[in-house]
Amino acid sequence: MPTPTARRGRPGYDQQSVLAVAVTAFNRYGYEATSMGMLAEELGISKSAIYHHVPSKGDLLRLALDHALGGLEAILEDSRAGSGAADARLEFVLRGTIAVLTERLPFVTLLLRLRGNTEVEREALQRRRTFDRQIAALVDAARHEGSIRDDIDPRTTTRLIFGTINSIVEWYRPGGPLTADKLADDVILMVFDGLHLR
Amino acid sequence: MPTPTARRGRPGYDQQSVLAVAVTAFNRYGYEATSMGMLAEELGISKSAIYHHVPSKGDLLRLALDHALGGLEAILEDSRAGSGAADARLEFVLRGTIAVLTERLPFVTLLLRLRGNTEVEREALQRRRTFDRQIAALVDAARHEGSIRDDIDPRTTTRLIFGTINSIVEWYRPGGPLTADKLADDVILMVFDGLHLR
Repeated sequence: MPTPTARRGRPGYDQQSVLAVAVTAFNRYGYEATSMGMLAEELGISKSAIYHHVPSKGDLLRLALDHALGGLEAILEDSRAGSGAADARLEFVLRGTIAVLTERLPFVTLLLRLRGNTEVEREALQRRRTFDRQIAALVDAARHEGSIRDDIDPRTTTRLIFGTINSIVEWYRPGGPLTADKLADDVILMVFDGLHLR
Repeated sequence: MPTPTARRGRPGYDQQSVLAVAVTAFNRYGYEATSMGMLAEELGISKSAIYHHVPSKGDLLRLALDHALGGLEAILEDSRAGSGAADARLEFVLRGTIAVLTERLPFVTLLLRLRGNTEVEREALQRRRTFDRQIAALVDAARHEGSIRDDIDPRTTTRLIFGTINSIVEWYRPGGPLTADKLADDVILMVFDGLHLR
């Protein structure tokens, strides 16, 4: 979870509880349609009490998106993403992306559904594009290295990989029979080796 | 396009033009937020004139979803989906799905974003689930036949395949350098044979 900017408000609630409730509501009703009053009601506190935890609805959105993006960006800062064969680095980054997606599911869901209506959203989309470009560069490197096929355009390859991985937010349920590690194994297997037996 | 129920309204407009404008607006603003007045303004006709083409906003939604679902369901009615080796039938159906998705892009986009808020939406989701179940049965058959790997749970396999294919609506632009046929080749190649060279 993001580091709370300050510990304030009533005991029993902190910025993180408010954030968790907010993200669920943003995903369910949309950011625009969610009011601070709705969040207060959901938490069972007064509308004025909620402002003890966070200055504005925009700050809740910013903190939530930062939690998703911070997790993704940390993968690329790991040394395993930066050195070695490009296809091993790509696999490391894709496994990391699936781990962040499953651990921070509602936060990544919110990120993936952004439309860029506000400045906070546009900044988050800019960070997401930077992350996406770094994966695209890894795909390119693996292609030049000769470890992944070159009969699919690298942009298409990158989009299909992201499509496969990002769609996980639509159906994955943490705590169910499919663990996040097995899911990552499955995705890596399908994407790199294909479903056909040989 | 769906068969118009009747040819009515002013010359220069027909139900199909109204439907095309409606689907674009539903995708952009959401079904709830789109009014018949907005559609009339977009078409440059009066609000009362729009009712010459279609009885209600709900009918526009129903016609649009039927155009997407009818295209998908027709694939399964083709004899190539019904006989032969299961993995060839699966490939035929997936190629057909990609063709419908790219040809009827805004209609399938609308279908994929449904939340089931109205009776029309719930009926469409029911038809979509029936379609999805038939693909899942083909995946199962290909697995039992021994042509696709059995170390991934068949439900996960089906979800990853749909995730890969459905995500195409988020980025594919008809008329660009990537043709729908090449895209289908690329998807089939990645999903069945994987990105790794061997």
